[in-house]
Amino acid sequence: MRTLKVALLGCGVVGTEVARIMTTHAADLAARIGAPVELAGVAVRRANRPRPGIADELITTDATELVKRDDIDVVIEVIGGIEPARSLILTAFDHGASVVSANKALLAADGSALHAAAASAGADLYYEAAVAGAIPLLRPLRESLAGDKVNRVLGIVNGTTNFILDKMDSTGAGYSEALEEATALGYAEADPTADVEGFDAAAKAAILAGIAFHTRVTAADVFREGLTEVTAADIASAKAMNNIVKLLAICERSADGSSVTARVHPAMIPRTHPLASVRGAYNAVFVESEAAGQLMFYGPGAGGAPTASAVLGDLVAVCRNKLAGSTGPGESAYAQLTVSPMDGVVTRYHVSLDVADKAGVLAQVATVFAEHGVSIDTVRQQGREGDASLVVVTHRATDAALSATVSALRNLDNVRGVASIMRVEGE
Amino acid sequence: MRTLKVALLGCGVVGTEVARIMTTHAADLAARIGAPVELAGVAVRRANRPRPGIADELITTDATELVKRDDIDVVIEVIGGIEPARSLILTAFDHGASVVSANKALLAADGSALHAAAASAGADLYYEAAVAGAIPLLRPLRESLAGDKVNRVLGIVNGTTNFILDKMDSTGAGYSEALEEATALGYAEADPTADVEGFDAAAKAAILAGIAFHTRVTAADVFREGLTEVTAADIASAKAMNNIVKLLAICERSADGSSVTARVHPAMIPRTHPLASVRGAYNAVFVESEAAGQLMFYGPGAGGAPTASAVLGDLVAVCRNKLAGSTGPGESAYAQLTVSPMDGVVTRYHVSLDVADKAGVLAQVATVFAEHGVSIDTVRQQGREGDASLVVVTHRATDAALSATVSALRNLDNVRGVASIMRVEGE
Repeated sequence: MRTLKVALLGCGVVGTEVARIMTTHAADLAARIGAPVELAGVAVRRANRPRPGIADELITTDATELVKRDDIDVVIEVIGGIEPARSLILTAFDHGASVVSANKALLAADGSALHAAAASAGADLYYEAAVAGAIPLLRPLRESLAGDKVNRVLGIVNGTTNFILDKMDSTGAGYSEALEEATALGYAEADPTADVEGFDAAAKAAILAGIAFHTRVTAADVFREGLTEVTAADIASAKAMNNIVKLLAICERSADGSSVTARVHPAMIPRTHPLASVRGAYNAVFVESEAAGQLMFYGPGAGGAPTASAVLGDLVAVCRNKLAGSTGPGESAYAQLTVSPMDGVVTRYHVSLDVADKAGVLAQVATVFAEHGVSIDTVRQQGREGDASLVVVTHRATDAALSATVSALRNLDNVRGVASIMRVEGE
Repeated sequence: MRTLKVALLGCGVVGTEVARIMTTHAADLAARIGAPVELAGVAVRRANRPRPGIADELITTDATELVKRDDIDVVIEVIGGIEPARSLILTAFDHGASVVSANKALLAADGSALHAAAASAGADLYYEAAVAGAIPLLRPLRESLAGDKVNRVLGIVNGTTNFILDKMDSTGAGYSEALEEATALGYAEADPTADVEGFDAAAKAAILAGIAFHTRVTAADVFREGLTEVTAADIASAKAMNNIVKLLAICERSADGSSVTARVHPAMIPRTHPLASVRGAYNAVFVESEAAGQLMFYGPGAGGAPTASAVLGDLVAVCRNKLAGSTGPGESAYAQLTVSPMDGVVTRYHVSLDVADKAGVLAQVATVFAEHGVSIDTVRQQGREGDASLVVVTHRATDAALSATVSALRNLDNVRGVASIMRVEGE
């Protein structure tokens, strides 16, 4: 029985765990795959760090040479980023290897090209770990729901921002203060841009939408709004309505089925919604489909061991396919639905205005909403020495209608400013 | 491109939905499979019922003849029960067809023999729909977690009993009254034995344990206690502790890893536990594994369309394998762990005693617990005219130790009776 050889690209938090589990659980992996699997090389940036459990002779700083080796059956890519990851993966396919990747940014930017390269090489490209860490989500969407019609995917897919919003909610802290704590505790990176500006979640949304709707969706197609503008006042306002603010990734099929949208933004959801109780670095994703109804998947969204679990599940599948001389399902983009911009998205809005505390202001504001076809659900008015704050929660309206409403509101003399606009979901 | 032909055995609630979706979503299924798939025959018990959407010439009452047809690629079995389902499935394998089944009872009784028949025929046997309806659970366990070590599976896998317990909890109704309502609303069958005695959940537990632990587990290996003995007093007692009673299926690896247990019984869990809020006919299952940590899967546990979603997901996978000339993962029972009886299970207990309202009774009772090595967590005592009720919640102890304790308690003169014993989980 031949031994399958694996090249590991990257040996950070995830790579270390992958190597550890491959060693400590070698017998189990062999039994499940049907053949032994061994680590044949580990490409790292800096060779001189101690790497307990990994033999020195496996370490190389020449990743390209490693993926060119013709004895490599599977390449595991956990270095992240676009380059050199993309070139290395393409080279791996050229040399007949299958690839397991955890690289959400790359898959969301260029998944189709990578899938095409895999297909023409007769190789597999699996990336369960790229979205929602340990949570089995891509495989269920792609395989378990392959006979169903997915209409909506909605979830919390970024642990860093969930941690920050959690802090803001539980302590009343502002964004900067909560970010500081997240950084100190290692939940946020030194440069938190990818997380707090929603890039990470948008990449995941693109991947989810693509698989759910059998349509090509890239990160550039995803409307993206981070949480840097979320204030302590927004959080408090959400609380007053028995809501909570979460950064959501939402992928939806339009009512007529002809188009889809994908978006990432902070949103208020009811505290009774199951996503409201998702804390800290956990992720949770709802999938709504025609026949199955509403499903939820919940678990650790990041971390070395959880991500390694997803990588190794893919490794087992890819190795089984290798042994069988087959490949798993590739890209499925046959539906070719239009990916619509944000304008057409229909949802509810929480609009917070600073207005002059005069008679007739509410009537003026209400008229502007009505003129733009945006129906008001509730209004709360609170006076403060000459100024007043007016919080309007709307019924469902298109994003375009809401934007036009807000532009018109800004032109009212009695509206001093639009303090915040936040979408309301999950009702 | 050849058309794959499907034989459908059974056309009840699930079969009807399978047929409907195969017709209405034919183009999507073809795109996802890579070839058209068509319903080539439907075996039913009574031919003369109206079956909208299914051509008359497809209907047959001779299921055996249908599965013997050499043009059938895949047999979908949704008739349930042991026979004739087993013989029909074996005949299908003999004739080269792959099988998708929703038959938990059969899989739990005889899954290994069926898997062996599939393997020797070079065919697939898939049965996602057999456990937790629409929830993708078997595929994630078998494939997504194939590189991980599952230590525990714990969940609500029977909607009927969950509905009954829900009613008892929310209305204070007794078991019989709640069952009556469940029957009237169609949540319970005319003969509810399989659900209320835990047979249905035990079959699912056997299937889950087998896949999770890579070990053969049959329904006969599962400790099973239904909910017919659960009283309104038990529910009230749980409430008093801020707990709720649920019928749980629990599959566990022993601490030393050498054995596993599988059990189904009513248990008290904290109201703050995510499973506490699983209502009505929904199912939810926690999976705890070494690397991934704690995952949860939630969704509709039964019903025509949800079950059909799972069946069709399997159909797509099995058809893809057919076209590729490969098969998916078969039975994985290499670990051959011992399936231990209930005696060795370690958990906490809620013991409700009717005792004489005299000085010294609590001391006597406490002594019996201590003598058997069962440590007491809390005691609540409530007097009622000469009698008193004593509720003891223990720390973790083996089932054997608890049983011995209860036997000894029954022999105390001052203990009038053991009103109930319930396990406490999820803490």
